[in-house]
Amino acid sequence: MSVVKSPLPEQARTIVGEALQGALVDLLDLSLVAKQVHWNVIGPRFRSIHLQLDEVVDTARLASDTVAERASAIGITPDGRAGTVAKTSGLDTVTDGWVKDGEVVDIMVAALDACITRMRERISATDEPDPVTQDLLIGITADLEKFHWMFQAENV
Amino acid sequence: MSVVKSPLPEQARTIVGEALQGALVDLLDLSLVAKQVHWNVIGPRFRSIHLQLDEVVDTARLASDTVAERASAIGITPDGRAGTVAKTSGLDTVTDGWVKDGEVVDIMVAALDACITRMRERISATDEPDPVTQDLLIGITADLEKFHWMFQAENV
Amino acid sequence: MSVVKSPLPEQARTIVGEALQGALVDLLDLSLVAKQVHWNVIGPRFRSIHLQLDEVVDTARLASDTVAERASAIGITPDGRAGTVAKTSGLDTVTDGWVKDGEVVDIMVAALDACITRMRERISATDEPDPVTQDLLIGITADLEKFHWMFQAENV
Amino acid sequence: MSVVKSPLPEQARTIVGEALQGALVDLLDLSLVAKQVHWNVIGPRFRSIHLQLDEVVDTARLASDTVAERASAIGITPDGRAGTVAKTSGLDTVTDGWVKDGEVVDIMVAALDACITRMRERISATDEPDPVTQDLLIGITADLEKFHWMFQAENV
Amino acid sequence: MSVVKSPLPEQARTIVGEALQGALVDLLDLSLVAKQVHWNVIGPRFRSIHLQLDEVVDTARLASDTVAERASAIGITPDGRAGTVAKTSGLDTVTDGWVKDGEVVDIMVAALDACITRMRERISATDEPDPVTQDLLIGITADLEKFHWMFQAENV
Amino acid sequence: MSVVKSPLPEQARTIVGEALQGALVDLLDLSLVAKQVHWNVIGPRFRSIHLQLDEVVDTARLASDTVAERASAIGITPDGRAGTVAKTSGLDTVTDGWVKDGEVVDIMVAALDACITRMRERISATDEPDPVTQDLLIGITADLEKFHWMFQAENV
Amino acid sequence: MSVVKSPLPEQARTIVGEALQGALVDLLDLSLVAKQVHWNVIGPRFRSIHLQLDEVVDTARLASDTVAERASAIGITPDGRAGTVAKTSGLDTVTDGWVKDGEVVDIMVAALDACITRMRERISATDEPDPVTQDLLIGITADLEKFHWMFQAENV
Amino acid sequence: MSVVKSPLPEQARTIVGEALQGALVDLLDLSLVAKQVHWNVIGPRFRSIHLQLDEVVDTARLASDTVAERASAIGITPDGRAGTVAKTSGLDTVTDGWVKDGEVVDIMVAALDACITRMRERISATDEPDPVTQDLLIGITADLEKFHWMFQAENV
Amino acid sequence: MSVVKSPLPEQARTIVGEALQGALVDLLDLSLVAKQVHWNVIGPRFRSIHLQLDEVVDTARLASDTVAERASAIGITPDGRAGTVAKTSGLDTVTDGWVKDGEVVDIMVAALDACITRMRERISATDEPDPVTQDLLIGITADLEKFHWMFQAENV
Amino acid sequence: MSVVKSPLPEQARTIVGEALQGALVDLLDLSLVAKQVHWNVIGPRFRSIHLQLDEVVDTARLASDTVAERASAIGITPDGRAGTVAKTSGLDTVTDGWVKDGEVVDIMVAALDACITRMRERISATDEPDPVTQDLLIGITADLEKFHWMFQAENV
Amino acid sequence: MSVVKSPLPEQARTIVGEALQGALVDLLDLSLVAKQVHWNVIGPRFRSIHLQLDEVVDTARLASDTVAERASAIGITPDGRAGTVAKTSGLDTVTDGWVKDGEVVDIMVAALDACITRMRERISATDEPDPVTQDLLIGITADLEKFHWMFQAENV
Amino acid sequence: MSVVKSPLPEQARTIVGEALQGALVDLLDLSLVAKQVHWNVIGPRFRSIHLQLDEVVDTARLASDTVAERASAIGITPDGRAGTVAKTSGLDTVTDGWVKDGEVVDIMVAALDACITRMRERISATDEPDPVTQDLLIGITADLEKFHWMFQAENV
Repeated sequence: MSVVKSPLPEQARTIVGEALQGALVDLLDLSLVAKQVHWNVIGPRFRSIHLQLDEVVDTARLASDTVAERASAIGITPDGRAGTVAKTSGLDTVTDGWVKDGEVVDIMVAALDACITRMRERISATDEPDPVTQDLLIGITADLEKFHWMFQAENV
Repeated sequence: MSVVKSPLPEQARTIVGEALQGALVDLLDLSLVAKQVHWNVIGPRFRSIHLQLDEVVDTARLASDTVAERASAIGITPDGRAGTVAKTSGLDTVTDGWVKDGEVVDIMVAALDACITRMRERISATDEPDPVTQDLLIGITADLEKFHWMFQAENV
Repeated sequence: MSVVKSPLPEQARTIVGEALQGALVDLLDLSLVAKQVHWNVIGPRFRSIHLQLDEVVDTARLASDTVAERASAIGITPDGRAGTVAKTSGLDTVTDGWVKDGEVVDIMVAALDACITRMRERISATDEPDPVTQDLLIGITADLEKFHWMFQAENV
Repeated sequence: MSVVKSPLPEQARTIVGEALQGALVDLLDLSLVAKQVHWNVIGPRFRSIHLQLDEVVDTARLASDTVAERASAIGITPDGRAGTVAKTSGLDTVTDGWVKDGEVVDIMVAALDACITRMRERISATDEPDPVTQDLLIGITADLEKFHWMFQAENV
Repeated sequence: MSVVKSPLPEQARTIVGEALQGALVDLLDLSLVAKQVHWNVIGPRFRSIHLQLDEVVDTARLASDTVAERASAIGITPDGRAGTVAKTSGLDTVTDGWVKDGEVVDIMVAALDACITRMRERISATDEPDPVTQDLLIGITADLEKFHWMFQAENV
Repeated sequence: MSVVKSPLPEQARTIVGEALQGALVDLLDLSLVAKQVHWNVIGPRFRSIHLQLDEVVDTARLASDTVAERASAIGITPDGRAGTVAKTSGLDTVTDGWVKDGEVVDIMVAALDACITRMRERISATDEPDPVTQDLLIGITADLEKFHWMFQAENV
Repeated sequence: MSVVKSPLPEQARTIVGEALQGALVDLLDLSLVAKQVHWNVIGPRFRSIHLQLDEVVDTARLASDTVAERASAIGITPDGRAGTVAKTSGLDTVTDGWVKDGEVVDIMVAALDACITRMRERISATDEPDPVTQDLLIGITADLEKFHWMFQAENV
Repeated sequence: MSVVKSPLPEQARTIVGEALQGALVDLLDLSLVAKQVHWNVIGPRFRSIHLQLDEVVDTARLASDTVAERASAIGITPDGRAGTVAKTSGLDTVTDGWVKDGEVVDIMVAALDACITRMRERISATDEPDPVTQDLLIGITADLEKFHWMFQAENV
Repeated sequence: MSVVKSPLPEQARTIVGEALQGALVDLLDLSLVAKQVHWNVIGPRFRSIHLQLDEVVDTARLASDTVAERASAIGITPDGRAGTVAKTSGLDTVTDGWVKDGEVVDIMVAALDACITRMRERISATDEPDPVTQDLLIGITADLEKFHWMFQAENV
Repeated sequence: MSVVKSPLPEQARTIVGEALQGALVDLLDLSLVAKQVHWNVIGPRFRSIHLQLDEVVDTARLASDTVAERASAIGITPDGRAGTVAKTSGLDTVTDGWVKDGEVVDIMVAALDACITRMRERISATDEPDPVTQDLLIGITADLEKFHWMFQAENV
Repeated sequence: MSVVKSPLPEQARTIVGEALQGALVDLLDLSLVAKQVHWNVIGPRFRSIHLQLDEVVDTARLASDTVAERASAIGITPDGRAGTVAKTSGLDTVTDGWVKDGEVVDIMVAALDACITRMRERISATDEPDPVTQDLLIGITADLEKFHWMFQAENV
Repeated sequence: MSVVKSPLPEQARTIVGEALQGALVDLLDLSLVAKQVHWNVIGPRFRSIHLQLDEVVDTARLASDTVAERASAIGITPDGRAGTVAKTSGLDTVTDGWVKDGEVVDIMVAALDACITRMRERISATDEPDPVTQDLLIGITADLEKFHWMFQAENV
């Protein structure tokens, strides 16, 4: 069913659609991972990290909405269901139970690292077929890389 | 590892912990389901439902945070990871792709119905062991039942 | 016509529905009574009481909306029409024309007294059939009893 | 008891007082009618109309306060008690129970129609005796006629 | 020097200019009188009247700005200098030193009475030559008459 | 097609409809003219005038919305399309390219002058058939005349 | 007259200037078209579409200001006069009179379609001569394509 | 002197009054203890804990006001004087002088522990005589237990 | 009548009372002078100066309230009546009618100059008898001297 | 333990430290006294005084924080524990139970009187050793003396 | 010391790092230059330019923070010390002492010109190695070019 | 060139001018130093210190503006250029590159220490010649000493 007419030609639409779907899943998982450790972090840095993680959650949720609505705007139906996230996310599963603050920082550096690597591939992939989508991905990546630096700076 | 000393005796803690973990998973899934149809809804009522779904998302996210932090407060580690949500949610998986507005409303009535039934069981279960947790669950259920009415009123 | 499926079994629904309908009428009448004396109060305490009455009005209007929407949520249609309020309110009719400030306070103590007595009966009646409704009625009663104290404290 | 000295001569005061008392009752009833269907509306347009009705309620409540305080300002005691509203309102009694969205719109067009006709008569009646009151009634009528258009535009 | 071209013919401009200059002086004096008793009021109703007087001050200041700028807009230079206010105000001079709360209310009723009588004459005078100015004067008079009622209601 | 039932009799509706359509076109053109010189103004007073023009734009846009919706409310369909504005506006076409600040002020005085003259005619025309519309036009004219004074005061 | 020194070489300035002038006219017309149907829409979806159109208006107005000021910043005088918009806009003229809600949506899909096609050409054209302008056009296009999707999703 | 008529029978009033007076003293002391260590904390976690303690202070102050006003509302005069707090508080006296950050956390865990244990007893005690008071105590306890978890999570 | 017991001994009270009364009159007159030229300024700098003058008005009004309430606080009744201001102000009377922008700046420099010279004498006079009053006068003088610089900087 | 290096020499530090510790205790007690009568006031002026007392509480709490943090800043550990306040406050213990409004005002005048006398001694004592601390105490005293006037003005 | 792992390969990191360090120094100097003339500007346009310069300061400070944090995010330590700014800024040193308004505008045009030229080189240099950094630089340059136009438009 | 007439005699002006110029340079450098370590801090306390440093930056920037404008107000031209700051600041140059969190705290204690010592000398120097300037410097010093305590309290 061709509901939404895409402003992109067919091939571009497919490439860009894949980039957006991948970003959606990674960002939703990032928000779930950050919440998970937000609730389970323990240690002297509890409060500082607990608050910092909610900034990641806010950014990831907003970004996931942006990419999903961009997918719809180019005529691709986004899929952000729990099962899809669990199966196709590029992030590692985090441990359950209490997690020490230093470990939480390591988990976040690794999760952001995985996201960023894949986001940079998507930036390259969308450059030619759709500069509008690329621009959204660039903005999101800038935010992720800022968090990436901050968590690294904390674990020296 | 006994990190957080519970204000509840052991048996009460176990019952209340189960209620909270169940509520956490249902509420996280509710937020994912509502976002999924928020992005994929089509039909004349698109805008009205698109906006209404974000109110469900906001409520479900806030409520999931409340129950997860309550779990931590009684010494239970909450588990809100994507895999856990996908495996243990009490909600049915929704269809992917575009969904007509009337179907979206049916999906939401069913999802809320499933949540509410289980929340009411948790309200009963926590009455005796922990009135503090019960009070939080009651407040969340009132919100869910209000949405439940509104979506039903729309599909007459 | 069974429009909204109740989360409550039939008997509970009837008891709770009556409590909510009674509360709705009393709260709407309370808002009308408070406005009536807000406009007609005279005496040295005019300004203080004029302002205080609008806080009662705001509380009563918000509470009436809460109970009416709760009724809808459990599948009961609320009735807040002028005729129904005039006929079934538990509050006495107030005098028309200018009213001295001291009398206004007496009128409000009596009106709140009538509301509170009936609200406490509704709290008892809904305890078993629906703790969600009971919780809303408890919150509203706390507000009414606070106003009740304040008006009494003023007429010593 | 001559409590408030009127800025108007006796005859003008009587004419203007009647206009304001009539407007007060109609506007209070309009707020009750709009709330009644706000709670009981059903059908696909539920949410849109549910929200729109609260704008009518806010306008009607504010306007009723304006006309009642204007009555006091010219030395006339306003009467906005439930019984007075039930007996002297110019609006038809609405049906109870669930109401389909299209019917709700018809009810609101009729209620606003009744209000507007009477408000325009009051604008004429107060022109000579009190331009200050007339100006308030003109402002309120502009708002009512805007709602009147919008509800009509919806039921084409 | 003809700096600002008036939208009014010469004769209308003169009539309207006088009405505005008179209103300007009365309103500036009203703001000074209200501040004077705001600072010097004593008695059990001190706080209530102290606050209420600042509402009069705010209204009078805003209104004086409105009429002065309206004068400029029709090509008349407004004169709001201290000497002009002292010499041409329509309000009585108030007593200096502490003033008992009941007396303050009497002073305000008298001051508002003087303002209102003259404002109503200005409303009549401007009706034909400039409905735009008349509309501003009507709005200001409505506010003054509301304060007039409230202060009267307090001294019963 | 008689979509919206007018609160006015036929003849009044025609007169008032013409006044509103004329006002709509003038106000839309005023907003376009003010924006045009907002972008193209040069000279030492650049910043001051650049900011001042946006206040005219905001006022004109808001006023155009008010008159258009008033037209709809009395059952007249407003026409604010680019072609209609270009053909029927009462304002002169402004020059393109950079414009010196003094000239910008002259342009705005002339544009406002043209608007005001026509608005005052519409105030007269609507006095008898519809005081509600007249009141809206009076309020808009007061704003335009204030800008008219300010721009004149700047070019002395 | 060389008033503003361009940061771009001559040829780049010409290409970019044309892109910006074209975008300005299309966006101004889009705001006028959206307002036109905002006022004239009828049908059951009146309120939803009426509100949605104002979001398009806000976006188009802001975007038109952005591109016009960008033109000035590179030393090109923007032309947003009514006559220029009427003559050079890339959008079709819309019908006057009442318009059914479904038709309104079709009109908006077509108008946005025309805008987007031309905006994408401008994005290509400005890529090499001025990435700063291109970035602004990309941001605006993202917003237009989001509205484009939403209106399409509504007319299924 | 029987100033405020209680909505509770005599025996219930006595039980509930004791619970509220006890809660008042504990909460006032909690606010003083938290401020004391807010000012005297030292160590690497200074800033994080300094800020966190003010959240406890805000919560404790608000809660003390809630319970004191509830006492008044049921006709019991609350006693929150310094001497009463010093003599009857359930919290241990804290050490004076600088306190290391880790010790501060221990102090707060102990202080909250003492408060919570007694609050839970008061929740049980008020269940039957006054569900309105119980509901307020439950809400306060939920907040205290959240802080209790957070301080524990910090000292692992 | 000894209404308010002064925290100052008799002699100090007299000196400080004179300083405050003098400051009150100067500041009230400054606010009237600034408004007078705010309304009557003409010339190319109209808008900039028109806005700047309202900042002086706001500062002068706030400062006059501060010094008047300080007088009351030390048991001195402040006198801010129009006649008192006209007779005892330390500022020169300004000319009426339109005033060119450059002259307005000169008027303001002179008015501020007069205020500042007298405020500095009051700062010296109150140093020993009342550092609390002195501190208020210092703060006000800092603001006046800032405006003094700005107006001077404008007329170079 | 010499944790914080003082910007003051030893002797100055001791004098200033005593002044700050004394101020801290008085201000904390003032906040407790004001709350005590805020809850227990009765009589016709209940509402006005109830609200006014919360302004004293806010001021006293903010001021106590300011002086305590100032003590820390000069290397003195502040002591604001309940026992210290109860033992060393300069304020009289207030009566418990309901208090008539007139008595409440007397209590507040006496409490502020005691505070002010001691604050003025501290202003003198800190003048030479630390003008920074003196400036904070002057600002706080100005606020206390304003409340002192207002309560006196109320009981005439 | 390799503290922060860069998302860029080594060579890209060096190029991008140089671009960011250069931008940081220029933007910090721009903020200092704009403040310097903000304080020292004199002449009839004083107020207008004084305010306008603070907008440049706000933009430059925000931009300097953005580029410095971007440098950290790619593993480069930014250097914004006074000495580094003084030695390596691309802006000319401005004169000290009072500066006439026209000269201030010339100074700002020149300073922005220098910044823009270098920013455009950095946009080119970062295009290939890091589109994320390039996007930030493009956004900053758009703002600088807008100010550049505005200052030029003022000095015609 | 004598542009701004000083409210101070010549000698006082020179002394106060030097104090203000010295304060300006120190405060500007403090803001640059705090930003430098804000960007380069690493270690477990990264986030807490990163945020705290921005509070220092905000305070220092606001204070530098206050002292610079005070200089202008007394007829002294402030000099806040990069070269002047680099050459005449009283603060030590900080190291470049990443800095461990503990070292950052040491750097800030030393920087604040240097500022405070010099500010206290300026407070003494300005006491006699200009109490207005002295009051501003006292307020700024209070803020600096508060930060001084906090950073010391962190490194115990």
